[in-house]
Amino acid sequence: MKTIQARNLKGFRDHLPSEQIARGRLIETIRKIFELYGFEPLETPALEYADVLGGKYGDEGEKLMYRFKDHGNREVAMRYDLTVPLARVAAEYKSALPSPFKRYQIAPVWRAENTQRGRYREFYQCDADVLGAEFGIADAECIAMISRIMHELGLKKFKIKVSNRKILNAIMFTAGVRADKILKGIRAIDKIQKIGAKQVASELEEKIGMSKNEAEGLIRLASIKVPDVGALKTFASKYILRHEQGQQGFEELNRVFVALKELGANYNVEIDLSLARGLDYYTSIIMEAVITEGTEAARFGSVAGGGRYDKLLRLFTGKDVPAVGIAIGVDRLFAAMQELGRVAKQGVVQVLVLNMDAKLEKDYLELVTKLRDAGINSEVFYGAADMKKQFNYAQKKSIPFALIFGEDEKKKNEVALRDLRSRVQRVVSTTDFLKNPSKFLET
Amino acid sequence: MKTIQARNLKGFRDHLPSEQIARGRLIETIRKIFELYGFEPLETPALEYADVLGGKYGDEGEKLMYRFKDHGNREVAMRYDLTVPLARVAAEYKSALPSPFKRYQIAPVWRAENTQRGRYREFYQCDADVLGAEFGIADAECIAMISRIMHELGLKKFKIKVSNRKILNAIMFTAGVRADKILKGIRAIDKIQKIGAKQVASELEEKIGMSKNEAEGLIRLASIKVPDVGALKTFASKYILRHEQGQQGFEELNRVFVALKELGANYNVEIDLSLARGLDYYTSIIMEAVITEGTEAARFGSVAGGGRYDKLLRLFTGKDVPAVGIAIGVDRLFAAMQELGRVAKQGVVQVLVLNMDAKLEKDYLELVTKLRDAGINSEVFYGAADMKKQFNYAQKKSIPFALIFGEDEKKKNEVALRDLRSRVQRVVSTTDFLKNPSKFLET
Repeated sequence: MKTIQARNLKGFRDHLPSEQIARGRLIETIRKIFELYGFEPLETPALEYADVLGGKYGDEGEKLMYRFKDHGNREVAMRYDLTVPLARVAAEYKSALPSPFKRYQIAPVWRAENTQRGRYREFYQCDADVLGAEFGIADAECIAMISRIMHELGLKKFKIKVSNRKILNAIMFTAGVRADKILKGIRAIDKIQKIGAKQVASELEEKIGMSKNEAEGLIRLASIKVPDVGALKTFASKYILRHEQGQQGFEELNRVFVALKELGANYNVEIDLSLARGLDYYTSIIMEAVITEGTEAARFGSVAGGGRYDKLLRLFTGKDVPAVGIAIGVDRLFAAMQELGRVAKQGVVQVLVLNMDAKLEKDYLELVTKLRDAGINSEVFYGAADMKKQFNYAQKKSIPFALIFGEDEKKKNEVALRDLRSRVQRVVSTTDFLKNPSKFLET
Repeated sequence: MKTIQARNLKGFRDHLPSEQIARGRLIETIRKIFELYGFEPLETPALEYADVLGGKYGDEGEKLMYRFKDHGNREVAMRYDLTVPLARVAAEYKSALPSPFKRYQIAPVWRAENTQRGRYREFYQCDADVLGAEFGIADAECIAMISRIMHELGLKKFKIKVSNRKILNAIMFTAGVRADKILKGIRAIDKIQKIGAKQVASELEEKIGMSKNEAEGLIRLASIKVPDVGALKTFASKYILRHEQGQQGFEELNRVFVALKELGANYNVEIDLSLARGLDYYTSIIMEAVITEGTEAARFGSVAGGGRYDKLLRLFTGKDVPAVGIAIGVDRLFAAMQELGRVAKQGVVQVLVLNMDAKLEKDYLELVTKLRDAGINSEVFYGAADMKKQFNYAQKKSIPFALIFGEDEKKKNEVALRDLRSRVQRVVSTTDFLKNPSKFLET
């Protein structure tokens, strides 16, 4: 018989248990914090009508979408992000949903990207969004949640860059960019970190027709980084507050900083006027988290981001709905944590009952059942293999304890417990052990 | 601007929070029990090479698979079940995996089925499988896990039907079915429950060329249902044990019942020789769980099933690998529990801090932060809407407590806590409350 070559598609990954256990716990931490802030889970399908997803991610996004015709000849597409499906849900079930609607969704999305280091064609997004709440506390809580997640994961060195599209618009006006060129300008400014100021300047000259001087001036304005709104005042009075949008944006930024302080979460936040966020649909506050730890921290890129997008829902509902949200790039975050050595090897099993003697199978099954009844993840090795194989198994699964029980132990009503990390073995009475096994399994 | 009609593809569903919270908890229960038994999580991609997935589900399955050409003109297909990707993983990473390899996977799969009540094109599977363990404890533990999951979910009335493909083969021989017709015979027998004995008899006559008498004889043999192996002995000596496969199958069944007893889990198990399980790849023990509660219990169909499939991995590795596993049909199980009234309306938020006075925003943010720091899921209502709207919000999210804090309360250093189910309101000192909020939020 011809065998099939076992292989993955380029850009698609398996997450083996040795990694998935830790990855799952990371996701669980994020989920808990979303719920702590009052967000509820939503699930949407992997496939949608192509016209529901299409036309919202720009030309580039459109090309990367997995589209095909289904069995009923419908044009369908695989989920590209979690925001557009949310907008669809909000329009479809409006009256059934609480208002404001605070939902989170943690799910894979698919993009036929050019694969490169840390970029995959299937990756998870962890999104939390609020629909139906005007600018205010909701925006500050989005920033606070990112901050709390990073802290909870033990990442102390990070920055959350915050800006406001309205301020960016004002700066564009100040630098002489015409209204109809602003989106192009924003997309260019967004790349400063990635491709450098020089390249961006050329792009501004080419695509918007700015002079070299104008382009450099704009980049200078956008390069402002300050710790809070107070430090932005002098600059603002010159370059931001002369425009109505700038005034609004500045006022919003101020409000967010006040609320953050009250939420006890304004640490690690910085105003960075070069922050633009590629997506077209942002209308006000924008944010992005970067890890600043490690020698090559920058290459981890943005691990979380978000902002306010008050106009996206118009596509489905015909009118604006205020909306703000964040997305945690959990795969990128996990990769960064792995590189920083923050991901310990983890298993799920606490005790391996060694299978030493086929005649004692009954005892092994009784022992393992009692451990499970006490809530302890445990297993009997399947099959009476030699001990080396069984210890090797325990090691691969990071099982901390082996329970040793042979004819000898049985006669004496004892079990031997081996700590597989310290290699220390202790003998305890079976009765004592089963009375409260957790006591003997401290890790 | 033309708006896009917000709609779902046929056979695809959204899980809104009002349902997803309970559904997520059901899945969490299953996950915990899988881990209790020593299974570790695996994730595989939604898309695979079409030849990796194809050719394993029969003609019918092949037709239902979502296949298309990707951007690189590769023939790809969406995950159709979790067993074939597992087989691929086992072949691809052999040496990196523990042996035996016990993994679970909980993920959606996609099949372009004719939609009907309770049948969808996207649904979740919860699979736990053991690769590399010969027949024995592993098989018994699969049954025990199903039983434990059903109990844990509060489903006391259910049956786990167990049989063995080898016994079915022996019965086929006894009834005069030729070796090359056995798979067809098994597929026919599998439908007794669904379409009735009469229809199956016609199918046996048509497809296998049995006489009416032979077909009825076979159906009679396959209709045996007994509580354990002991009760099968007389029947077995006449119809099963004369064939080598029958002897093996009977011996295996016996071994499973002995192990189940030792695992303390042989309740609700019954031998049902008509159980066949449609899939071709089973080689030995097979099992299937049905709910027997409620007036229309039968229509819930099978909510879990599995069996041993020692030959599937040959497709990837060129040699047999012993394998056994189960799949929990979580969507069907959830639907059944909903119909039985076992799914309470659940929320994730414990406290809604009412937003009564814009001037007190600072206080609200401080209060909610302290609640969150105490691990209590809570939120401030976004925006100072009238109270009716806020209470309506709490009700939609099943939030049990509202925290009421206005100028009055502030002056007296008090908070009013309203239990939104009993409508009982109590006033406590803010200091006392914040010292240990959980004490005041017992549900």
